[in-house]
Amino acid sequence: MTIPIAERMSRIGTETAFAVSLEASQLGQKGVKIYPFHLGDMNIITPSNVMDAAIEAMKKGKTGYCPTAGIADLREAVAKDVGEQRKLKLTADNVSIQPGGKPTIGKFILAAMNPGDKVLYPNPGYPIYESQIEFHGGVGLPYGYKEARGGFILDMDVIRKGVRAGARILIYNNYQNPTGASSPPEEMEELASLALKNDLLVLSDEAYFEIRYGGTPMSIASFPGMAERTVILYTFSKKFAMTGWRLGAAVGPAKFIEYISKINVNDESCSNHFIQYGALAGLQGSNEGPLGILAVLKERRDVLVDLLKAIPGIRCFKPEATFYLFPNVTGAMKRKGVDDVEDFRKLVLRETGVSFCTRKHFGRPLPGETERYIRFAYSGIDVPLIKEGMKKLADFLA
Amino acid sequence: MTIPIAERMSRIGTETAFAVSLEASQLGQKGVKIYPFHLGDMNIITPSNVMDAAIEAMKKGKTGYCPTAGIADLREAVAKDVGEQRKLKLTADNVSIQPGGKPTIGKFILAAMNPGDKVLYPNPGYPIYESQIEFHGGVGLPYGYKEARGGFILDMDVIRKGVRAGARILIYNNYQNPTGASSPPEEMEELASLALKNDLLVLSDEAYFEIRYGGTPMSIASFPGMAERTVILYTFSKKFAMTGWRLGAAVGPAKFIEYISKINVNDESCSNHFIQYGALAGLQGSNEGPLGILAVLKERRDVLVDLLKAIPGIRCFKPEATFYLFPNVTGAMKRKGVDDVEDFRKLVLRETGVSFCTRKHFGRPLPGETERYIRFAYSGIDVPLIKEGMKKLADFLA
Repeated sequence: MTIPIAERMSRIGTETAFAVSLEASQLGQKGVKIYPFHLGDMNIITPSNVMDAAIEAMKKGKTGYCPTAGIADLREAVAKDVGEQRKLKLTADNVSIQPGGKPTIGKFILAAMNPGDKVLYPNPGYPIYESQIEFHGGVGLPYGYKEARGGFILDMDVIRKGVRAGARILIYNNYQNPTGASSPPEEMEELASLALKNDLLVLSDEAYFEIRYGGTPMSIASFPGMAERTVILYTFSKKFAMTGWRLGAAVGPAKFIEYISKINVNDESCSNHFIQYGALAGLQGSNEGPLGILAVLKERRDVLVDLLKAIPGIRCFKPEATFYLFPNVTGAMKRKGVDDVEDFRKLVLRETGVSFCTRKHFGRPLPGETERYIRFAYSGIDVPLIKEGMKKLADFLA
Repeated sequence: MTIPIAERMSRIGTETAFAVSLEASQLGQKGVKIYPFHLGDMNIITPSNVMDAAIEAMKKGKTGYCPTAGIADLREAVAKDVGEQRKLKLTADNVSIQPGGKPTIGKFILAAMNPGDKVLYPNPGYPIYESQIEFHGGVGLPYGYKEARGGFILDMDVIRKGVRAGARILIYNNYQNPTGASSPPEEMEELASLALKNDLLVLSDEAYFEIRYGGTPMSIASFPGMAERTVILYTFSKKFAMTGWRLGAAVGPAKFIEYISKINVNDESCSNHFIQYGALAGLQGSNEGPLGILAVLKERRDVLVDLLKAIPGIRCFKPEATFYLFPNVTGAMKRKGVDDVEDFRKLVLRETGVSFCTRKHFGRPLPGETERYIRFAYSGIDVPLIKEGMKKLADFLA
């Protein structure tokens, strides 16, 4: 007997990037030296004040359940942190602690989206948006990015078309994975204006809000009238190098946050109790840890962008945020006579050990896409390996 | 503007027991001494070998992501543990690590149940079954328990009726919350036979499988042909007093477990990485910790049952499993002239400080229920307080 599966399981997606990890590690086991640019994970250790506070809480017996929405002090600290940086008045009631940043996506969709609802989402983008929309019976309306003004900008025409087609919800990921795009103020203002005029509900994925190497941070929730209709995805994963701890939050209108927490009651009861004290120490303590993490990432970015730009057939912007690059490799692929970007990825991996994801890991390609992109993550690879890998890539593509 | 909520949110339930906690703590703040029998949480510390291993893993940098289904060693250890105790041949492929026991309920429902499917579930029972069934569009068919042979037995007539009405899925919680019921072998065999004959899929909630003070443990998955159609809810919460760590597993047919893990990819990515090493140490190390926890709980049970039985108007069985009692208080309520069991709970709380849940916190009462029950949990209260509280209750009801 095979257990019959519910129909909705035919509509769930996954993160196909995991397959790249597997390929790379299998090649590595054969003795090939791997340069891991495919990982969205970090090889940087969590700051010690965070660890110490979590351990102390564990030993003090914070090992039983805590409130579903999180310990009161952490909810308040997140409200303060998010509020101050975005000029919003927030309290603990606006915060529901989650076991990671990602859980906010699914819970937001469950709480806000009816089957048949149209949802605008970025593509290329984090593949979980598309998956959760379709899993729960929504209709995804993908929008893309265009190269312009030394970076990537939103394809506003497609977004406007989606709004005219009746989109109810907009998923927006400023400081974007995989492109590294940061919206200029006028772009974000136009989005906010569209949302207000058309009564859109917004999920603002701000996972990389604090992984910035320059510029002033901006959230769409800060525009007048937007906080009431925006839910922010917040995470401890990147700022504190806590990816494997699984801690984040949904931040938004108190009434909506109550519904999110009600889903938590039904799903995981609460997030791990004692690690919340670690995160609290991170938010309340010295900023040394996060600044150290940013400094490490900035050096990697600078080295990697310069080396990539020097390779013929590769065009690469220098994003001011995230730990991703999204180089255009159309030229390099032509030189090698390769049409498919996945074929290119596999060829480069096999010949050089340089491992990366491609545009295809971030959503189904849109009609009319002619340029080819790959994604480099530099969160899991040190500068010496970056240099060595780029030398091999340059030699191969020369 | 208020964010409009999806229709399914009108069908989600909650754990109304949290309201009892709030009432008790508010009364406590007014200076009333509270005897907390309402908590399903534990006031027992996690064994130190579990803590030490988790801390060591954290410090060694197990702070990044781990595989969605859990670290390989822990999946294998759970397969071994579950398999040996239930006489099943299991491998790591049969195990998906979850952030708690509870997440298996929702993920099972999502993976197995189509909207409109009929699902048999216990009532009185853990309220999340009913909530998740209805949240995702299923039709819940509640079945109850009857007092017989010195304990509670399943109302098999209602289960058979549900099967005839077309139930596809059976949720079964042996070593049951709130009744403390353990199925005698013939009862479990009859259930298994019904499942086989009628092609039912079974979620076997075995959260309390190891919180047993006597008898031989049994799982419905152990009957011939049943492992292929049964998913076991497994948790570290009770055996290792790890409720607030949030760690458990779904255990079942490998193909189905793959689907469960695919939902994990979309929801929380993975469970906290370093605490999995703590759980692994718990499973592989000395059994001293779990035995100590059981000894503490057994003493509490013995004291509490004897004191409750001595109170006129209260009938109480002595369960061989779980840390719950489900006394019949029909007589005591009559003596006090109270009709509604919630009124009785509030009266007792106000007059004595003894705080407990009632039958109404475990599902909507079924037609024809005439007896009145309350639920005592003894996982969060020490023997001296148990004695003191029971003295007050006895005096009040005398």
